[in-house]
Amino acid sequence: MSRSNRDPAVLARQLRIDSVRATNAASAGHPTSAASAADLIAVLAGAHFRADLDEPANPGNDRFVLSKGHASVLLYSWLKTMGAISDEELLSYAQLDSRLEGHPRPVLPWVDVATGSLGQGIATAVGLALSLQKLEHSPARVFVLCGDSEMAEGSVWEAFEHAAYFGLNNLIVLIDVNGLGQRGPTMVGQQTGPYAERARAFGWQALEVDGHDLDQIDAAFRAAAASTDRPTVIVARTEKGRGLGAVEGAEGWHGRPLADADSALAGLGVHPATAVAPLPPPVITRDKPRRGKLSLPSYELGELIPTRLAYGEALVALGRAREDVVVLDAETSNSTYAELFRDAFPDRYFEMFISEQQMIAAATGLAARGWMPFASTFAAFTTRAFEFVRMSAIGGAAIRLCGSHAGLTPGESGPSGMALEDIACFRAIAGSVVLQPCDGNQAAQLVQTMADADGFAYLRTHRSGSPVIYPAGESFPIGGSRTLRSSAADVVTIVASGVTVHPALQAAALLDGKGVAARVIDCYSVKPIDADTLLTAAADTDVLVTAEDHYIEGGLGSAVSEVLAEAGSSTPLRRLAVSRVPGSAPVGTLMSAHGLDAVGIVTITQAAMSTRTST
Amino acid sequence: MSRSNRDPAVLARQLRIDSVRATNAASAGHPTSAASAADLIAVLAGAHFRADLDEPANPGNDRFVLSKGHASVLLYSWLKTMGAISDEELLSYAQLDSRLEGHPRPVLPWVDVATGSLGQGIATAVGLALSLQKLEHSPARVFVLCGDSEMAEGSVWEAFEHAAYFGLNNLIVLIDVNGLGQRGPTMVGQQTGPYAERARAFGWQALEVDGHDLDQIDAAFRAAAASTDRPTVIVARTEKGRGLGAVEGAEGWHGRPLADADSALAGLGVHPATAVAPLPPPVITRDKPRRGKLSLPSYELGELIPTRLAYGEALVALGRAREDVVVLDAETSNSTYAELFRDAFPDRYFEMFISEQQMIAAATGLAARGWMPFASTFAAFTTRAFEFVRMSAIGGAAIRLCGSHAGLTPGESGPSGMALEDIACFRAIAGSVVLQPCDGNQAAQLVQTMADADGFAYLRTHRSGSPVIYPAGESFPIGGSRTLRSSAADVVTIVASGVTVHPALQAAALLDGKGVAARVIDCYSVKPIDADTLLTAAADTDVLVTAEDHYIEGGLGSAVSEVLAEAGSSTPLRRLAVSRVPGSAPVGTLMSAHGLDAVGIVTITQAAMSTRTST
Repeated sequence: MSRSNRDPAVLARQLRIDSVRATNAASAGHPTSAASAADLIAVLAGAHFRADLDEPANPGNDRFVLSKGHASVLLYSWLKTMGAISDEELLSYAQLDSRLEGHPRPVLPWVDVATGSLGQGIATAVGLALSLQKLEHSPARVFVLCGDSEMAEGSVWEAFEHAAYFGLNNLIVLIDVNGLGQRGPTMVGQQTGPYAERARAFGWQALEVDGHDLDQIDAAFRAAAASTDRPTVIVARTEKGRGLGAVEGAEGWHGRPLADADSALAGLGVHPATAVAPLPPPVITRDKPRRGKLSLPSYELGELIPTRLAYGEALVALGRAREDVVVLDAETSNSTYAELFRDAFPDRYFEMFISEQQMIAAATGLAARGWMPFASTFAAFTTRAFEFVRMSAIGGAAIRLCGSHAGLTPGESGPSGMALEDIACFRAIAGSVVLQPCDGNQAAQLVQTMADADGFAYLRTHRSGSPVIYPAGESFPIGGSRTLRSSAADVVTIVASGVTVHPALQAAALLDGKGVAARVIDCYSVKPIDADTLLTAAADTDVLVTAEDHYIEGGLGSAVSEVLAEAGSSTPLRRLAVSRVPGSAPVGTLMSAHGLDAVGIVTITQAAMSTRTST
Repeated sequence: MSRSNRDPAVLARQLRIDSVRATNAASAGHPTSAASAADLIAVLAGAHFRADLDEPANPGNDRFVLSKGHASVLLYSWLKTMGAISDEELLSYAQLDSRLEGHPRPVLPWVDVATGSLGQGIATAVGLALSLQKLEHSPARVFVLCGDSEMAEGSVWEAFEHAAYFGLNNLIVLIDVNGLGQRGPTMVGQQTGPYAERARAFGWQALEVDGHDLDQIDAAFRAAAASTDRPTVIVARTEKGRGLGAVEGAEGWHGRPLADADSALAGLGVHPATAVAPLPPPVITRDKPRRGKLSLPSYELGELIPTRLAYGEALVALGRAREDVVVLDAETSNSTYAELFRDAFPDRYFEMFISEQQMIAAATGLAARGWMPFASTFAAFTTRAFEFVRMSAIGGAAIRLCGSHAGLTPGESGPSGMALEDIACFRAIAGSVVLQPCDGNQAAQLVQTMADADGFAYLRTHRSGSPVIYPAGESFPIGGSRTLRSSAADVVTIVASGVTVHPALQAAALLDGKGVAARVIDCYSVKPIDADTLLTAAADTDVLVTAEDHYIEGGLGSAVSEVLAEAGSSTPLRRLAVSRVPGSAPVGTLMSAHGLDAVGIVTITQAAMSTRTST
């Protein structure tokens, strides 16, 4: 391979030509967004990026995150210049079953994380850079290409703050300041100063360049490489559609293939057909994380244990058994009990302060490097990062999230601190698992269970102590349930999960005293739910009642409804749930006020039975 | 009322004493977080805050947002000093049915927006300040008290950027830099410099003060009042628990009543029992927004109209008829068609750029001032602001959100741009309404319908054109549905909503050709859903099929499941939905690949019928 192949001017021309060709073939895509950044990528590709493409996971490889994912065709064109994909595959862009999707996903081995929802790239790159610097001890760098429009997302500034806090000098961000969003000018247009000043105020090295001056870009990459203590942002003034003729710098061409691609291609000149491998990476050896025997904490039957405490203690056990476990928390570790892991394994704990989006993004980046991240915060605030979880799942990342203080258990804190929508949200995540323990031993086991989940897994814990009802060491597989009480005489089934299991058992005892035999099922696995056991109960009993500390839509009651409706079960379901925005009060008072105590469950059960009888 | 009553030192003592008393009575709350900010509030209360408490909505009134909502007892103590609440009510703090909840909500008439989820206060205050400055033309100010821990939330920096962009010199933010979060030190501890530098980089006036020096605080408020072009942040170095004895500056006292309240109270000295009304507000007259006759756009039967276009055109009509309608969009107005309103009523349109959280928060603030905000962006990115919608609903705000390009319609863009979880999320919001139109006339009518919804309302529109099937002018009430095809011979019911209504009708025609009579129901109101019509269909036909461009959990199929299960219907339901993360392809190709075309609906319907027959 001749040196001239590395000429960034030639590479830039090739990137622009292929970006136009591929979007033209697809009649879709963002050629103008690719063109504004082509010179930045050409210099990176030709002179700075180090990787062995045959070993995408190589710890010496630099990583690249295309935060402005809509410019995907630029990345794909770059992959073509590196010989990673063929011209034929390039031209399959955005078509069914092509790996070259409209926005990049890890269906391509050189893509670590899914992008496309703007403002997430730097945040996930923080996770990659944390792994490389703190855990893998690799000199590899993480490069991120951002659009300027996405700098309006607050998550970007969370990422700036955390990258500086962690001293991630291996993180290098490019901002493509073409001044134009999809609708029109950004807040600051083509000024680079505001971005540079903000970045400096957050503790970064900030360099302003002409984004089409190859020498200035090259010098900036060299300055970035020289930073010993802080991340670098290269703020590049560019023209949208640069080099594409009539559309250059023009509004109204976001997200559209060119109207006259032939004329743009003619203007770009000869199509170079070079294949330029990246520079070789440094040789880094990464020890495979060791795995040993897991010894979970155990609790005595009847002991009052908050499930959140069992989560924390189980995490420590898991961390002892598995070196790949890492933990993140959003400034709530003394409540979620993630602090137990922090104290035991400080090198594998990352304090993310109050920034849930950054926490999920960092977990996603860490997962992409082979770690098994557990993130935690108050359940009410897990949904602050919902859209980051969504993107994480779209990228197939296996991250685990624990929300503590779920449901009404925050009590006096009031509704802002109460998660009453979290199950609905996380059930809707593609391929997710949603688990909710009711006691300490079950919680500990579910930590082990969720560790091996394929995709996103959510664990919902509670603030208050609950009596231990399961002996230590029992297994709680994903998709299972436990029938806690059952007899051939059962006429009603009470389905509960988490804190409502205990009043459900009390209610069954009260009903028993009234001559009503009640089955009680603990659906600790809310998704997937144990359809077989529920359908058997529906066949065996006259009425089903669900009891949950969640709003009525999308939670346990919905999951059970889906099972019954699909099966055409004629056994009616009554759903007991939180039916209005709660106020503030001690948790026991609130549970009673919302009918989520034994008396409330008895009342709704009897009402359901009488309706059933009268029809 | 004597002048000495306004002595801020006396007021501060009173605020601290009452904060300790109320949290002590409740055995809950955050007295140390109240104490660090007591001097800031005392100076504001004594010398700067102007309001007529008898007229909470008075446009001349200054507004106060307690972003660090956990310090609620400080606000309630302040309300007591103003005579707004009694000592008896103060001591009902955090108890069932008290207006004085753990975190403030608009159940108190002097509270505009719910707080408690950190990092949202400045963002909602941007909405209040926009209303006062741009729409009400009032000189009233909006004061926000923030904790320092919450500055880690990216939403805070979204708010800083937007407040400066809009030139909101009527916005004055106090940051209580006590250096301690709930778990321990913040990223920058008690340094005020980093916050001030960041604020300046975002275009604010930033003033650093000793937060316990009453004169410095007073001078800062005066400087803030003098700003003519930009918002002001007062960055105050404080001590957590200031004045409360042993807990002052100590870790481990976040969110706990004092262990020894008596000794703290003894140290604080005499309990002043003053009642100090705020300074009188300027007299501002606000015209009642005019309402005229609404003339919605109309479309010809058969015309291909994207529902998003009808949304935009209906918004213009609504804006013409109602002066209280305001519109916000997150840099997607050329896609959502909010740009039509912007062009027609530029004074009532707010461009929020790519910051969905700020958009929802601003809408919430605008709603608190009596406007009817419609916010819009791509449906996939509406959930970025989920937790802000949650808080908005907890505060009872009546805001409207439109998500465009829902489901698979982004096509080549791929899954990052596809909303497949939005219905699940927004169905779970307390008191929400979720609507999904299938044609232009229905979309236009639903814009009118949602305008009158009580709480949060979500409208889901699509990218592609759909044929108009409803004549103009028909009514589509919340909670209704339309049966598009029905006969006494129906053996199957297909339930659809939005884009799936059209293939459902085609499928019914195909089934008709096979001798199978199919009913088709358009559930445009997904929440509340029309249970009666569904149950009649379940009674009349052998099988129900739902067809939706959403993941299978939490959407239309779940809503129908809930109805059937509660009623104990034995008619089985088959749910056709998106069952895996989609790739990128033209929309028609994708709809077929996921079975969401007429052929797919016929196939699942026939399979469901044969299962039904065989059992």
